[in-house]
Amino acid sequence: MSLGEFELIDRLLRPLAVGFPGALNLRDDAALVDVPPGHQLVIAKDALVAGVHFLHDDPPDLVAGKLLRVNLSDLAAMGAEPLAYLAVIARPPEFPENWLEEFVRGLERDQTAFGLHLIGGDTVGTTGPVFLTLTILGLVPSGHALRRDGAGPGQLICVSGTLGDAAMGLRILRGLAAPEDVSMPLVERYRTPRPRIALGRALRDIATAAIDISDGLLADLRHILDASGVGARIEAAAVPLSEAARGLPGARLGALTGGDDYELLFTIEPGKAPLLSKLAETLDIPLTVIGTTREEPGLEVIDERGEPLVLDRLGWQHF
Amino acid sequence: MSLGEFELIDRLLRPLAVGFPGALNLRDDAALVDVPPGHQLVIAKDALVAGVHFLHDDPPDLVAGKLLRVNLSDLAAMGAEPLAYLAVIARPPEFPENWLEEFVRGLERDQTAFGLHLIGGDTVGTTGPVFLTLTILGLVPSGHALRRDGAGPGQLICVSGTLGDAAMGLRILRGLAAPEDVSMPLVERYRTPRPRIALGRALRDIATAAIDISDGLLADLRHILDASGVGARIEAAAVPLSEAARGLPGARLGALTGGDDYELLFTIEPGKAPLLSKLAETLDIPLTVIGTTREEPGLEVIDERGEPLVLDRLGWQHF
Repeated sequence: MSLGEFELIDRLLRPLAVGFPGALNLRDDAALVDVPPGHQLVIAKDALVAGVHFLHDDPPDLVAGKLLRVNLSDLAAMGAEPLAYLAVIARPPEFPENWLEEFVRGLERDQTAFGLHLIGGDTVGTTGPVFLTLTILGLVPSGHALRRDGAGPGQLICVSGTLGDAAMGLRILRGLAAPEDVSMPLVERYRTPRPRIALGRALRDIATAAIDISDGLLADLRHILDASGVGARIEAAAVPLSEAARGLPGARLGALTGGDDYELLFTIEPGKAPLLSKLAETLDIPLTVIGTTREEPGLEVIDERGEPLVLDRLGWQHF
Repeated sequence: MSLGEFELIDRLLRPLAVGFPGALNLRDDAALVDVPPGHQLVIAKDALVAGVHFLHDDPPDLVAGKLLRVNLSDLAAMGAEPLAYLAVIARPPEFPENWLEEFVRGLERDQTAFGLHLIGGDTVGTTGPVFLTLTILGLVPSGHALRRDGAGPGQLICVSGTLGDAAMGLRILRGLAAPEDVSMPLVERYRTPRPRIALGRALRDIATAAIDISDGLLADLRHILDASGVGARIEAAAVPLSEAARGLPGARLGALTGGDDYELLFTIEPGKAPLLSKLAETLDIPLTVIGTTREEPGLEVIDERGEPLVLDRLGWQHF
């Protein structure tokens, strides 16, 4: 059975706005947001399309979680605290009601986990696949947002967590054979990104530049290098792999070029290195130095024998 | 020829961000927005889908204008000033480059006209039709936003401009015969809504409740009545029609139930009535009293002979 627009908003979405007065119970044309003195609003917008960014048979609650988490990761990369979000849900005709119910259950679970509320949006029909867009709002102390353009030469390039897991997870979902005991953690990395909010907050006054890894380590590093006007040298062997990924074919390449990990990639002054291990311990997140920036432009990747590595693709194409 | 994502952002979209430092040249994960002291941010999000909300052969610059103006109208309904917007553009494979170029030209023209900037968003692929979503940001003095829930009994119900024009315009586009000299103004009303920003601003301290007419006069009036807990009586003959619409069959019904006019519907205390004509003159916009609110719930529409009018549809279905 398909759900009417008003019922979708009334029964499923309105409860997600409870607790945020400026959402006006989703009854107005727009929402009202207060920004405390000394703070800036941080805002980002991303979309997920069925068949492009998620699989048609992915569990709807995990799709909701991914949509929210991908956007939260944008906040993390700027050092911002989550505040609220707006969503547009576009449905084909006769779209199943229980998909939407499970989708909203996923939103509810993750908005509670990350402390934010739905404050507006739109539900529309489409003749195409399910189409989801989310606009996320966060707060950051004025002038303290992390940006891509602050890296200088001679700084350390660092990443959080392990890389390539999501790419391996996607390959497993698409039929690549893998031992059962390693599959689930990797599939989970693909389906349920972990936005590094606490790390982003802690890096505000430590990192010189930051980005979240959505397109792949090398592609996203290029964004920092381009914006900051520096080059870099990366030690491929230093890039951290998870236990689950380590034994799989293509894990190293996946870690360099695979997208969807949503770890933070950031640069720090060498003098700040001692803070890193302390931070890793406090937050219980691995933080690894994988290379250095330099004046000379370009991105050099060095393999374990010290030889430059040639890669035929630096980016990540969605399936 | 299809345009790459980076070229689309670099060449077409980035110029739209020039002049808004917090847009960070569209190079970061998110944008930074300053909210001046004593102000609240007003935020709304809407979507347009090809074949659902606009016609496939509608001129792309007008589609862009409509997308921006529909969202600006949400700001107008809250009494907010335009500040900035984010856009998600989803394209099918091999989508023509010149459609996008004309679309961006339309954004540029209207963002200049209304004084706001593009500050972020996303471009993605889709297997469905072109899908456009926009998030708009505005500012309003804290506590002075217009809302739907402020109407009390015994107040005057007013509308700006003329109603039903967009519905007639859509019917003309879909092949309804109409004299050529009246067609264009009506088609233009459908294609190029006029968000009532200046009126919304002026109504902040005059109106008790407000909404923009997107679903149709009666449907949108119901939103105010439901939110405010009052009923209303409308004089159908008082609803203002344009010269162009007046002679066409179905014009009166179109004015009551047709969507897409994006005029403001608002309530005022009877004592404020003298301000209305002054405001209409200052802003050069017709402002018409079409009925009154009352304690008794329900919405009664009275025809020119004083008889209750029965309507079989109170809303507006998109084609």
